[in-house]
Amino acid sequence: GAGVQVTVAEALDRVLTTVDPPLSDLVEAEVRRHTELLLRSTVVALEPGAEGLTCVLRGPDGERRIEVDAVVLAVGVRPDSTLLVQAGARHQKGALLVEDTMRTGLPDVWAAGDCVAHHHLVLDGPAWVPLGPAANKTGRVAGTVAAGGRARFAGIVGTAVVKVFDLDVARTGLTQAEAGPEALVTDVVHRSRAKYYPGGHPMTVRLVHEPGGRLLGGQLAGREGVAKRIDVLATALHARLGVGELAELDLSYAPPFAPVYDPILIAAQRALRTRAPA
Amino acid sequence: GAGVQVTVAEALDRVLTTVDPPLSDLVEAEVRRHTELLLRSTVVALEPGAEGLTCVLRGPDGERRIEVDAVVLAVGVRPDSTLLVQAGARHQKGALLVEDTMRTGLPDVWAAGDCVAHHHLVLDGPAWVPLGPAANKTGRVAGTVAAGGRARFAGIVGTAVVKVFDLDVARTGLTQAEAGPEALVTDVVHRSRAKYYPGGHPMTVRLVHEPGGRLLGGQLAGREGVAKRIDVLATALHARLGVGELAELDLSYAPPFAPVYDPILIAAQRALRTRAPA
Repeated sequence: GAGVQVTVAEALDRVLTTVDPPLSDLVEAEVRRHTELLLRSTVVALEPGAEGLTCVLRGPDGERRIEVDAVVLAVGVRPDSTLLVQAGARHQKGALLVEDTMRTGLPDVWAAGDCVAHHHLVLDGPAWVPLGPAANKTGRVAGTVAAGGRARFAGIVGTAVVKVFDLDVARTGLTQAEAGPEALVTDVVHRSRAKYYPGGHPMTVRLVHEPGGRLLGGQLAGREGVAKRIDVLATALHARLGVGELAELDLSYAPPFAPVYDPILIAAQRALRTRAPA
Repeated sequence: GAGVQVTVAEALDRVLTTVDPPLSDLVEAEVRRHTELLLRSTVVALEPGAEGLTCVLRGPDGERRIEVDAVVLAVGVRPDSTLLVQAGARHQKGALLVEDTMRTGLPDVWAAGDCVAHHHLVLDGPAWVPLGPAANKTGRVAGTVAAGGRARFAGIVGTAVVKVFDLDVARTGLTQAEAGPEALVTDVVHRSRAKYYPGGHPMTVRLVHEPGGRLLGGQLAGREGVAKRIDVLATALHARLGVGELAELDLSYAPPFAPVYDPILIAAQRALRTRAPA
């Protein structure tokens, strides 16, 4: 982008593993439109180069050296909870396990933010999903309770959105990978606007649901209208709506913003007819 | 717009009366940015003019004649139900009252679409809101049931969105005017994107709610992210969430799409502290 030549080295065999492959395939195509993408590749060394740096990459085709001006490392995150874990706080792979008041169980110690496992409303158990909104909310709860007030954190459903060049990708609830083999998936591609209204784009919707209709999660990808559409599914998860109730929602319609049946309604209607593979 | 000079004559004293005045004021300003807007004004005659038509307008300042190339009339809609009303079908001001199977009560006669009063889930009674999505859904129900199948229409919450030049305006549930004097309103203006991310716009949110916290409706206006954000409130109305539960939703956050606390969450947090005027 912007005239800068970019090479992306991804250690895994696909990009954005927080969504299922049909969606991450779209992300991969979008990344390849703007950069050179190397999968199953890692940076093994950075050396002084002729003008900038020499980046040594190792991938399925062996080693490769490229001259670069700058290297941006994104190597993931991990809860920095050693202090409390050593003091005896309960944790799950380093993510602190707290009450809904953010109490750690240690006397007069509260924990909040990205080092905490939040109560996941779909899993009905703790999950480590270190994202800004819950970090903010749990900080407020911890502060309120520590100061003698009353507050509790309601929990998360695992909602996230990211802009990858011109593609917006969002998820909430459980992916197929997270929901396990019993879960059903329903995929649709529908228009983001009325057919005759200019400027629309295809929108990909995946719903993850139980054979009995319970909604477990959803994923969206498209060039517009993704970020706040995922919030309809997030709200449905909070309210424990099934795909039948999802199909009945009175969602907004006007030609610049949606087809008369919103892509979410189309997906929910389809999900009602999705059967487990024989 | 597009170099065409437009005069809008509105018979009422404000535009878009389907939203409350704080929102319709924003719409009025947007209409005035692009057209000459005349309120409390009606077209009383169209006469042949020198080159096109002469449009005779009557307003608070008396009569005015303007030369125009074309006149677009938007005079509202009314259910065309005379046939069934004369046959004895139940109706409310012409809008047909039907069961959730779209049966009219007349033998072997179903009715669907804009001539029908739909079950309004917030009012828990019939309401005439003639919009496309419910017209489509009720047509499917009537067709399925008439053909011997099983289907029912779940009802509406009165969701609508409209694009007025560059301003998007949406509503769901009840407006303050519709909810009556006991209802509380909470108004906030918040950013559509993270503060530091370019291209954001102010977003106006109005929540209409009961003193006990029950959500009755919502309205949004802004230059982006309105249409599908209203659907979060529509989903909340379907699920009968209160403003406390609304404030707890795990909504999507990324700087291009929302602040870390979405404007809906900010409004819901504020609504929890809104008290009836003394």
